[in-house]
Amino acid sequence: MSTKHIGKQTVILQKPPSIVAGASVVGEKEGNGPLRRCFDYISNDSYFGEKSWEKAESVMLKQCFSLVANKARIAPSDIEYIFSGDLLNQCVGSTFALRESGIPFFGLFGACSTMAEALSLAAIFIDGGFCDCAAALTSSHFCSAERQFRHPLEYGGQRPPTSQWTVTGAGALILKSEGPGPYVTHITTGKIVDAGVTDANNMGAAMAPAAYDTLKTHFEDTGRKPNDYDAIVTGDLGGVGREVILDFFAADGMDLSSILMDCGLLIFDTETQDVHAGGSGCGCSAAVLASHLLPEMTGGRWKRLLFAATGALMSPVTTQQGESIPSICHAVALDMNREC
Amino acid sequence: MSTKHIGKQTVILQKPPSIVAGASVVGEKEGNGPLRRCFDYISNDSYFGEKSWEKAESVMLKQCFSLVANKARIAPSDIEYIFSGDLLNQCVGSTFALRESGIPFFGLFGACSTMAEALSLAAIFIDGGFCDCAAALTSSHFCSAERQFRHPLEYGGQRPPTSQWTVTGAGALILKSEGPGPYVTHITTGKIVDAGVTDANNMGAAMAPAAYDTLKTHFEDTGRKPNDYDAIVTGDLGGVGREVILDFFAADGMDLSSILMDCGLLIFDTETQDVHAGGSGCGCSAAVLASHLLPEMTGGRWKRLLFAATGALMSPVTTQQGESIPSICHAVALDMNREC
Repeated sequence: MSTKHIGKQTVILQKPPSIVAGASVVGEKEGNGPLRRCFDYISNDSYFGEKSWEKAESVMLKQCFSLVANKARIAPSDIEYIFSGDLLNQCVGSTFALRESGIPFFGLFGACSTMAEALSLAAIFIDGGFCDCAAALTSSHFCSAERQFRHPLEYGGQRPPTSQWTVTGAGALILKSEGPGPYVTHITTGKIVDAGVTDANNMGAAMAPAAYDTLKTHFEDTGRKPNDYDAIVTGDLGGVGREVILDFFAADGMDLSSILMDCGLLIFDTETQDVHAGGSGCGCSAAVLASHLLPEMTGGRWKRLLFAATGALMSPVTTQQGESIPSICHAVALDMNREC
Repeated sequence: MSTKHIGKQTVILQKPPSIVAGASVVGEKEGNGPLRRCFDYISNDSYFGEKSWEKAESVMLKQCFSLVANKARIAPSDIEYIFSGDLLNQCVGSTFALRESGIPFFGLFGACSTMAEALSLAAIFIDGGFCDCAAALTSSHFCSAERQFRHPLEYGGQRPPTSQWTVTGAGALILKSEGPGPYVTHITTGKIVDAGVTDANNMGAAMAPAAYDTLKTHFEDTGRKPNDYDAIVTGDLGGVGREVILDFFAADGMDLSSILMDCGLLIFDTETQDVHAGGSGCGCSAAVLASHLLPEMTGGRWKRLLFAATGALMSPVTTQQGESIPSICHAVALDMNREC
């Protein structure tokens, strides 16, 4: 076992890399939500000037990538690696967004956990001395996701109360070996957990066991307790999944209710925005991290954050074939103090 | 720039990890090809005992993963990370194969470049001290790919001469920090290259510019020449793409014809097996690497190999929307000598 590895699934970074910039681009509905003042750009055109929603998603992600490079005050050519993926079949949101970037590219598929996966890999590359600067990004688009995973938009299918609303949004981060923080200090990489849930309209319930598994392992591996964090933020369990994970921890005698937030509940007002159980999609946790969670840290309100993005690793075909929903959750600890 | 980074896109590993085992499982057609004696298991049932081709692909990959752990004489629980992905929408070939593994999982999407991407990341994790043992694996299945990317199997669409045949196969590797080799010494991570090819029946031509870009960069970054390798093996350009890349290098005054092989041409006999331009699919380069290329090294015939897997990063939707085909190639240098 290497010295950087502690417990079962966690690595401690020796020279914690700094997130030096984050950027977010979202759609109109997200721009009307509680975080409306936090996003870098809100588009009122769901097509982002393009002729299809798939092209729109790529343009949105490309715009977000330009924004984050500008905010970090670096030329894209100074970025040594990009880690990116998305929900579209064959991850074409990312590949078409970045095809002109000229930057070495690692394509990822982690469903809605993608930002945590990309952030983990970018931090590990820098900590390991393989590069000094890397980008982590991802996107989702309500319309491209809806027609791929569910129904044609025109069909107007009814949505059950447990369903979540795919966020139209992109998030991007730039990490460097040196910077003012937040620093990536610990990474707990998730294993796939399949609790047997088969209802593709209840992703929160399907993903909650994976989030519980990773968070529990993180606490065991690090010896930390929930209250050692100013916030623990999952993404995206929504209202249903959040209740499930709180129940799991309650059975262990741990009350996380005051500290556990969820990106899917932060980005929308579930009372007024008709999103049922909350937001979802790769872009949800990515945009919330870039627009809201990181500024809470750099603004001095939070010193330590555990970001735990969750993904449902199914496809419409597996659901049609009667399969349950394998899920995953990757947790990344961020700290304003590099020597934590 | 970190000390491990040389040139534009290459890292040199300081403590080159060893590939300690490779395993392959293929279908009947592959089992009738030139490498028939090399595979660990050949299934004459395209369903692998399952009720759908998607489930068959997962079972094949799961079987391959069990085999490689056995060959490495380790318990799956000793594997600290798995890097895996495939061609199926949302990479469900991998996620369903590995949902019971209990091993921290990074999902990848690199299309047919996936084995090189997974191998790169596994080696970097070990070299960087983040783990001692990792697995890299991937799969493809002719029938699940055909109906997802092209036509229902029953339609029997005619295939143009430039088309390639998706391999039914899986390949898996185990890497450790110590072992007898081959060692992973250099990694040149590809950037996305889009040369404007729009014909989804000519992936070789679409991917050849990406392979040329990565190989040329690898030679520039490392100062190595093609003849410093006993073999340079792309996967999978097929016959058409191979001619294109040879032409590109010829224009640079370099003749690679005697040293450049392609996994898509190694796995099938293109004269007799009716596969047109050759094999393709994530499983092609993965199975050829595990079954043929690595044994050429451990058997003493080759001392140094450059494995350069290529991927076409499109989807049926992007092709239908008139887009060209972005491609990528990741190159990994393997050496029987650790101090190269």
